[in-house]
Amino acid sequence: MDRLSRQLEFVREADRLKGVLRHTELTDPARRENSAEHSWHLALMALALGEYAPAGTDIGTVVQMVVLHDLVEIDAGDLSVHAPAAAQAHQHAAELAAADRLFALLPADQAAALRRLWDEFETRESREARFARALDRLLPILQDVRAGGAAWRRQGVTADQVLSKVTLIADGSAALGEFATGLVAQAVTDGILAPPAAGDPGPGR
Amino acid sequence: MDRLSRQLEFVREADRLKGVLRHTELTDPARRENSAEHSWHLALMALALGEYAPAGTDIGTVVQMVVLHDLVEIDAGDLSVHAPAAAQAHQHAAELAAADRLFALLPADQAAALRRLWDEFETRESREARFARALDRLLPILQDVRAGGAAWRRQGVTADQVLSKVTLIADGSAALGEFATGLVAQAVTDGILAPPAAGDPGPGR
Repeated sequence: MDRLSRQLEFVREADRLKGVLRHTELTDPARRENSAEHSWHLALMALALGEYAPAGTDIGTVVQMVVLHDLVEIDAGDLSVHAPAAAQAHQHAAELAAADRLFALLPADQAAALRRLWDEFETRESREARFARALDRLLPILQDVRAGGAAWRRQGVTADQVLSKVTLIADGSAALGEFATGLVAQAVTDGILAPPAAGDPGPGR
Repeated sequence: MDRLSRQLEFVREADRLKGVLRHTELTDPARRENSAEHSWHLALMALALGEYAPAGTDIGTVVQMVVLHDLVEIDAGDLSVHAPAAAQAHQHAAELAAADRLFALLPADQAAALRRLWDEFETRESREARFARALDRLLPILQDVRAGGAAWRRQGVTADQVLSKVTLIADGSAALGEFATGLVAQAVTDGILAPPAAGDPGPGR
């Protein structure tokens, strides 16, 4: 039973992801989203939008990847995608350390298999990982639009910053990238997302 | 783009599952769990405990099944597994109506495919469905033990009632059924779960 005990410890530890708050605002109930429910929403999104992945993408793998992708936030917390580069680098190091600790709760063979899946997502080295990352970028944009741009305003985010994240969506799915570009333009037109800041070098930086 | 619009409406509607409260208590943060984060936890549990499924079980399908399984609670709400039979029958009807409405948000081909997966889970007609149901029964027991039996006390639940649910765990996984039986006995020994009520006909009813 030692093997099962370790696996159950991993399952119990995972409970803590329900307490990690993201920067995304939910509208109903109106509160900040946690990373566990976000991960579920992404998995459902993979089932609904799988046909926009490149031919040959294994959607089952995408689902498993998004289930695992934020587990490291139990230790590292959530960082906004719009945080400065130095904070992103710090976050990356914290997430690697968290992955070392969390997957090691499992028996070694299983730890290695799930860690490989998490690494694949992080390094975007497969169609599955690039599509999973595209969904992870698209979902908060959908939610930010729905919440009337509250999270964007709170963080002082402008359209060029959001568009710079859309390149990663297009990299995982041409169709979803095109859709997201239109969504950002519409958000500016609707006045819920600030246009690019004057003198800003633009999305290409 | 009409197809994508329908798929996105499904994804947006799914957001509401984050507001459906379950009877399970979380310990950290101390609050009631919602059905979206529960569904994520089950998906992770399927990845961690997949080896206890009968040989040949497709864990990828199990993961997809548990991602979908509680979506109907958006309309039907969550009902305790310990609710009386009449309430369970009413809940079942409400969930069927919810499945009709929610899956129909999707394009017809996709609605049919995801509905088939949901029906399979409900009717327990495959190894995958029986294993998914076993996990769905085991996880709350783990959580109730961890929370010191608070949810059991609130609902006035006794050991025989919990054991009657363990049969469904054993049906999906012999090893996990055996483990759960031990867990319930230990909870009684530890004084966090009431022993069978005097004069009670027992778990076989």
